[in-house]
Amino acid sequence: MSELLPTAKTNSGRFFEDFRLGETIVHATPRTVSAGDVSLYTALYGSRFAVQSSDAFAAAIGYPAAPVDDLLVFHIVFGKTVPDISLNAVANLGYADGRFLEPVYPGDTLSTSSEVIGLKQTSSGDAGIVYVRSIGRNQRSEIVLSYARWVLVRKREPGTPAHAEQVPDLPSVVVPEELGEGCPPIDPAAYDDGLAGSAFRWGDYAVGECIDHVDGMTVEEAEHQLATRLYQNTAKVHFDAYGARESRFGKRLIYGGHVISLARALSFNGLGSGFHIAAINGGRHVAPLFAGDTVYAWSEVLEKAELPQRSDMGALRLRLVATKNLPCNEYPLKQGDQYAGGVVLDFDYWALFPR
Amino acid sequence: MSELLPTAKTNSGRFFEDFRLGETIVHATPRTVSAGDVSLYTALYGSRFAVQSSDAFAAAIGYPAAPVDDLLVFHIVFGKTVPDISLNAVANLGYADGRFLEPVYPGDTLSTSSEVIGLKQTSSGDAGIVYVRSIGRNQRSEIVLSYARWVLVRKREPGTPAHAEQVPDLPSVVVPEELGEGCPPIDPAAYDDGLAGSAFRWGDYAVGECIDHVDGMTVEEAEHQLATRLYQNTAKVHFDAYGARESRFGKRLIYGGHVISLARALSFNGLGSGFHIAAINGGRHVAPLFAGDTVYAWSEVLEKAELPQRSDMGALRLRLVATKNLPCNEYPLKQGDQYAGGVVLDFDYWALFPR
Amino acid sequence: MSELLPTAKTNSGRFFEDFRLGETIVHATPRTVSAGDVSLYTALYGSRFAVQSSDAFAAAIGYPAAPVDDLLVFHIVFGKTVPDISLNAVANLGYADGRFLEPVYPGDTLSTSSEVIGLKQTSSGDAGIVYVRSIGRNQRSEIVLSYARWVLVRKREPGTPAHAEQVPDLPSVVVPEELGEGCPPIDPAAYDDGLAGSAFRWGDYAVGECIDHVDGMTVEEAEHQLATRLYQNTAKVHFDAYGARESRFGKRLIYGGHVISLARALSFNGLGSGFHIAAINGGRHVAPLFAGDTVYAWSEVLEKAELPQRSDMGALRLRLVATKNLPCNEYPLKQGDQYAGGVVLDFDYWALFPR
Repeated sequence: MSELLPTAKTNSGRFFEDFRLGETIVHATPRTVSAGDVSLYTALYGSRFAVQSSDAFAAAIGYPAAPVDDLLVFHIVFGKTVPDISLNAVANLGYADGRFLEPVYPGDTLSTSSEVIGLKQTSSGDAGIVYVRSIGRNQRSEIVLSYARWVLVRKREPGTPAHAEQVPDLPSVVVPEELGEGCPPIDPAAYDDGLAGSAFRWGDYAVGECIDHVDGMTVEEAEHQLATRLYQNTAKVHFDAYGARESRFGKRLIYGGHVISLARALSFNGLGSGFHIAAINGGRHVAPLFAGDTVYAWSEVLEKAELPQRSDMGALRLRLVATKNLPCNEYPLKQGDQYAGGVVLDFDYWALFPR
Repeated sequence: MSELLPTAKTNSGRFFEDFRLGETIVHATPRTVSAGDVSLYTALYGSRFAVQSSDAFAAAIGYPAAPVDDLLVFHIVFGKTVPDISLNAVANLGYADGRFLEPVYPGDTLSTSSEVIGLKQTSSGDAGIVYVRSIGRNQRSEIVLSYARWVLVRKREPGTPAHAEQVPDLPSVVVPEELGEGCPPIDPAAYDDGLAGSAFRWGDYAVGECIDHVDGMTVEEAEHQLATRLYQNTAKVHFDAYGARESRFGKRLIYGGHVISLARALSFNGLGSGFHIAAINGGRHVAPLFAGDTVYAWSEVLEKAELPQRSDMGALRLRLVATKNLPCNEYPLKQGDQYAGGVVLDFDYWALFPR
Repeated sequence: MSELLPTAKTNSGRFFEDFRLGETIVHATPRTVSAGDVSLYTALYGSRFAVQSSDAFAAAIGYPAAPVDDLLVFHIVFGKTVPDISLNAVANLGYADGRFLEPVYPGDTLSTSSEVIGLKQTSSGDAGIVYVRSIGRNQRSEIVLSYARWVLVRKREPGTPAHAEQVPDLPSVVVPEELGEGCPPIDPAAYDDGLAGSAFRWGDYAVGECIDHVDGMTVEEAEHQLATRLYQNTAKVHFDAYGARESRFGKRLIYGGHVISLARALSFNGLGSGFHIAAINGGRHVAPLFAGDTVYAWSEVLEKAELPQRSDMGALRLRLVATKNLPCNEYPLKQGDQYAGGVVLDFDYWALFPR
């Protein structure tokens, strides 16, 4: 212990002033997705969509094999961005324009890069919003996922001059013309509703319809930690109970993506034929989730769209709401302008359903 | 949230009056079993049977590869029946005539159907016993597992007229002539006792012999939840701590199959060469298990049988008893007519051992 | 329950007097390592070394596929020795001369044997130190790992005459000439520092340099139990909370190897290009770790060595220190002759880095 070079080789993350508009950051640790990841995803959330669960079912309708769950792809692609983008984030503010563009299969290797598409210092001057477009690619460099995200990042020095302000123009909803690339053509006649676990196809849903997903899932510390490490997401707030004693909540926070996956898995009960997430329009983590909380969920059909050039699948735009310790038989969402107590997630996405 | 169609698309499960004698229910969500499931099974129970653990060991004795643990097959086949059969069950009353008929290997896809083979309303008129024969098949439609099960299911309306009563005739023990189909011919000379971890083969066991498996395993909430979701078993009593506050026990119940797998894994210590479960004769979940409880187990040799036409393997009929927070050095089972305190499982099965 | 043959078929483990100098013990339960094990290892520790994470990255630099993490190999090889060597151990005293000699890939089957290389009764006469050389082999009988370990084992009868004393001569450090066999030749030009997540290669580190790995990881009971069962390690102190009530600590102890893997995964942040453990020089579990504790780690560069005949990789001898509930920004290690409070692991190993 003669000469100490304390943090010279440790990644302490980027601060607001370290980001440059237009720069592309190549994130570390490409990751080969395997059957082991698929099994763990099932064990963590209990997902039951037949296409992702069964090679035989997937092959019958036209996939080469069971694809990897879209949210597992999202979490792996997202996890890589954390050491570079959000290690010093104060808050994860939003997502937009997320599109799943190629199916992922076990054996594929995912890597991620992010372009800085916007910067805006806060009025207090001690932090700023960083907007990035993150791109996940497979080993053939095909884009499997593209999404925009913005986070509030601390400044290293409050006094540093501000970047020129640039706020990107992001769509509030992905248009139907851009949906469907992540789903190969399927044979709706070979799609077995009984094996799929739902008698309802695209045509059976109506705009405005609300579905209480009924079941509840209590989360344990070991579960969300296993999940978040599986995604190689290094955000310390999820893992360090000792360090968290002095934090705002005094305990470990559950990765927001864990909540999305729980709610999505619960939504099988009512939306069982919506096996593919085509796009993420937006998402808001309304309140934090902690170990010991029980997650419930409900969905609302916001829009219904045909896909251009495709008669096999149709799209539903869905609001997926998750709550904690609050059953959803009364569809809790807002009280006046505010989110109702107990609501933890308000997620807006397009799912594809067989026609 | 204009028009609310609350539970029209949510599966609320069948009630007693929804079952029809003789009908066959095709269960949802076929499942491709993978090396990931095998690893998780090892992580959940610590099973050490060499045939299931090592491709090289399995190949040496005549398997094409390491087969999937029989109980993992059971749990996956069983899990699919829950949404259709036992979502409104008050109690899981029993199993009979369970037979493992083909080995399952990673890559195989399992699906399940159930025939209603019996119905009997209770005298109080608010529930009834449903008897089903559940069949698990692989992607070639070969039957890998067949078993009967009966559960007490609530009625939707206590006043509904009763079904005609029909109680199936089920064997109390699978006869030795029906054993062995789930195990290919093996070469006992190539079976290495040292690598298998037991010097005792079929001939070394005697009827009446009792074995204390010595070790104990404490169960955590995260563990049984991971397991039960891995099996895509959706029974809410295992997952919803918030909802369970008002229940009889006030907390989550551990899936009975988790207890069977724990006890079976513990039984390796004393029954290490009994690598294949050929049949389940019956099983009783004597008392519930909760997180924090420690499971111990002991076994009794009930019967010893040769297999027709086979000199490679022999069968032992075993009683496997599991307890909670009660070591088994005194072989706890009954006190008078009642099960002794601490006993949680009384399981009767045939295991095959090399000769 | 007529005739009781209580523990005749249960492995109660070897006592000190059961070991014979020079004997070789073949351990049970060969184990095929799979992609499922790799995923679980990632979920348990969050390891991010690109070579082990990505088939594409590994292939680019010269591996046939992503190799299995060296410590996962260690834990699996080690786990097999427990039922024969350390079931009656009072303490795990040390490791030496551990060398990783072949990469392991998913699909390989590992088995272990141990030679008794030393025996020394304690002065009190009720226990003795057993020294073993354990060898892990793959399905082609190639040695993948060789290491020496010594444990303090109870005697069955304190009065038994002592073995002739023999203490083996073990190196305190593996010499650089013996490093590198577990790593195929790689192409340093194809090694992408950005994807690997570290700008620092072998040449960038200096002897005496200390690195605080910054992050902390809180351990849950479910996590260490899943890990230890995955390794088929049967030491009951890790699993039996009921039995542990009467023990020295009153609760379950975490497997020491779990701590090593946690610290190693944390060390990625600062040592991200040191992807291969070539040798374990020694290791001391200074204090026990319990569920609920948070692990932090720091490293010191002890030596720097070129590898004979190789210009692609260089070796760093590293001290890896893990603490509990004690951040490492002040590099805690000793206070006088004693380990400082909070230190749980002092581990000495050689890692290979690209040049």
